[in-house]
Amino acid sequence: MKKIYLTVLIIPALVFLTAGNGLAQASKEFHPASSNVLNSEFPKISDDNSVYFRLRAPEALKVQVQGGDGLCPKPLDMVKDTAGNWDIIIPNAGPGFHYYWFIVDGVRVNDPGSETYFGYGRPTGGIEVPVPGEDFFQIKNVPHGEVREHWYFSEVTGKWRRAFVYTPPEYDRKPKIRYPVLYLLHGAGENERGWSLQGRMSFIMDNLIAEGKAVPMIVVMDNGYATAKNAQPAAGFSARDMTRMAETLEQVYLKDIIPSVDSYYRTKANRENRAMAGLSMGGLQTILIGLNHVELFSHFGFFSAAILGDVMKDPKNAFNGAFADADSFNKKVRVMWFGAGSGETQFVSMMNDTRKKLEEIGIRSTGYVSEGTYHEWHSWRRFLKEFAPLLFK
Amino acid sequence: MKKIYLTVLIIPALVFLTAGNGLAQASKEFHPASSNVLNSEFPKISDDNSVYFRLRAPEALKVQVQGGDGLCPKPLDMVKDTAGNWDIIIPNAGPGFHYYWFIVDGVRVNDPGSETYFGYGRPTGGIEVPVPGEDFFQIKNVPHGEVREHWYFSEVTGKWRRAFVYTPPEYDRKPKIRYPVLYLLHGAGENERGWSLQGRMSFIMDNLIAEGKAVPMIVVMDNGYATAKNAQPAAGFSARDMTRMAETLEQVYLKDIIPSVDSYYRTKANRENRAMAGLSMGGLQTILIGLNHVELFSHFGFFSAAILGDVMKDPKNAFNGAFADADSFNKKVRVMWFGAGSGETQFVSMMNDTRKKLEEIGIRSTGYVSEGTYHEWHSWRRFLKEFAPLLFK
Repeated sequence: MKKIYLTVLIIPALVFLTAGNGLAQASKEFHPASSNVLNSEFPKISDDNSVYFRLRAPEALKVQVQGGDGLCPKPLDMVKDTAGNWDIIIPNAGPGFHYYWFIVDGVRVNDPGSETYFGYGRPTGGIEVPVPGEDFFQIKNVPHGEVREHWYFSEVTGKWRRAFVYTPPEYDRKPKIRYPVLYLLHGAGENERGWSLQGRMSFIMDNLIAEGKAVPMIVVMDNGYATAKNAQPAAGFSARDMTRMAETLEQVYLKDIIPSVDSYYRTKANRENRAMAGLSMGGLQTILIGLNHVELFSHFGFFSAAILGDVMKDPKNAFNGAFADADSFNKKVRVMWFGAGSGETQFVSMMNDTRKKLEEIGIRSTGYVSEGTYHEWHSWRRFLKEFAPLLFK
Repeated sequence: MKKIYLTVLIIPALVFLTAGNGLAQASKEFHPASSNVLNSEFPKISDDNSVYFRLRAPEALKVQVQGGDGLCPKPLDMVKDTAGNWDIIIPNAGPGFHYYWFIVDGVRVNDPGSETYFGYGRPTGGIEVPVPGEDFFQIKNVPHGEVREHWYFSEVTGKWRRAFVYTPPEYDRKPKIRYPVLYLLHGAGENERGWSLQGRMSFIMDNLIAEGKAVPMIVVMDNGYATAKNAQPAAGFSARDMTRMAETLEQVYLKDIIPSVDSYYRTKANRENRAMAGLSMGGLQTILIGLNHVELFSHFGFFSAAILGDVMKDPKNAFNGAFADADSFNKKVRVMWFGAGSGETQFVSMMNDTRKKLEEIGIRSTGYVSEGTYHEWHSWRRFLKEFAPLLFK
């Protein structure tokens, strides 16, 4: 999607908006974003998804805005008015959720008008841009499940860890029923709250279950970082760091997370009823942890997966030989699902390359491209909507 | 508590800390705060609770820090080093959780090294200062309850609302048992996540229940703002705004929240098993909603309550005549509990004045002062610890 940043539009738009007379009708109408806190007026969005940002900073020398790929991946200069407000209007914002921040005299800061979401390794502002024709991720008048905070002690890391666990709508009413489990992993720089907050996974699942498209299931969203007891934490998110961290996280899944979930919740505790899916770094973790343990999982989702390094170099001999007998694998692993957004071309390539390699050795998989979305949450919301109905059937 | 802001200490401390030799032993040792995100080094805290803040801002002209009453209620200038970092060490920080923020060239910004918490009407940074000798609010190796996200549609406001609901440890294992309910209200500028995040209510309740000090109960933490369908939202938090909002919130409690909780959770749905407590604005709401409905509630907690305006002017005739017959009230309402921190003198006065007025008309109440704490979360954590054991016995 090509973007033209019409900062020159700011002045007339401001005139129309503040004039308070008939002229205002002729201009774009802007409404506070649904993601704004309390009664915050800014940021505002027009019906054609232009986004109007404002920060009050009378003493600042320079203010810019920057955000996710579907909004403004490069810093854009904002313009100061005589009242000390810095403004910009960004046209053609992509659909769904975008992280964004201001840069005030070189310091990255969050917009006080928006909630924050854990991303980029810190709390980061975000805006929800309407998506015409799509409401699968909105709250509807259907039975709602719960997202629960679940604390458990990890012997592997020597620390208490927090997971969020979605239980389906009927969970409390039917105390004898047991449910299959999807382990759903977040991306680098995000945390265990991402899928329920940015991802709206509970509304997506509630809606799919209400429509009879997905079977009721438990969804476990754990934290994607793990450092073994007495070890040094990884320095960042290089391929090497992420691969090393996945090795520790693998132990956490085997020894801590899965046993804790199976003992605390009414799960169907077997491989046929256990799935794993993750986005970006979580997609890599799904490869490294999940494919190494097909004795534990039977369905996999790779969402904009970071298929880095040598992980798919020699698939036939990798993953404890999981792919060695393709027919046996295809019978055992019911779903191998890949997704990427049309705007994140590198991830589309990784997906296609990987699926080609798998095809060459006889492994079945499904690929999906989300039109007009990037390496952002609206891609991953769509992937969950497509993927969840395929599970446990 | 008197505070001396020893900014002059920064230079030698920095020298000792970065020298990497024997001298470091002679200086204060600082450790990353437990509230820091991922592997963030700053803010750091010393064993005697000096707090060392740093923000990297090479291009900024002026950087200050400001925070809660137990930390630095007035803006303090930070000092820039040659590498572009702005530093300050604040000695004698008060116990527990404090909000804080930086002011960069006049713009209030959050520290990227800390999580954010909803306070002051926006996501705001916070730091956890250790409390020697107190661990009642820490996670321990005891059975844990869950904090669950509960969505319900409000006919009064015409909107979906989110509450967080604590269910006690045994809730899922004993599907035939019903539980009493405490409605626990947050303060002005905060939201429904405050009690579980800043307040650590789930760990406090888990520990009290494990020690046999509190009976297992459900705790409902709803959002404290409400605007009736088609009405204009309140502009702020004046006594008038808060009183008007409480009138709408009263309807939300009567028609939406309590019915939703009683239908969704296994509650003991009667006044004997229903309590209400709130902090600051939530204390005012507990007065205005709770005392007007003693047919619904039997235990009350007023935590640093904002007893504003005329609400206690003529108690004998107020609250639908609840206090008209003192003996009857004292039998019906089992707990009237007030708390204030020794450092929030205005709230201590309001508490004492109110209790005196109640005493004059024969109404029994309990008062508690938390030593060395302010209008901040560590006061409210202590109040919950003192109050919860009195309920439903």
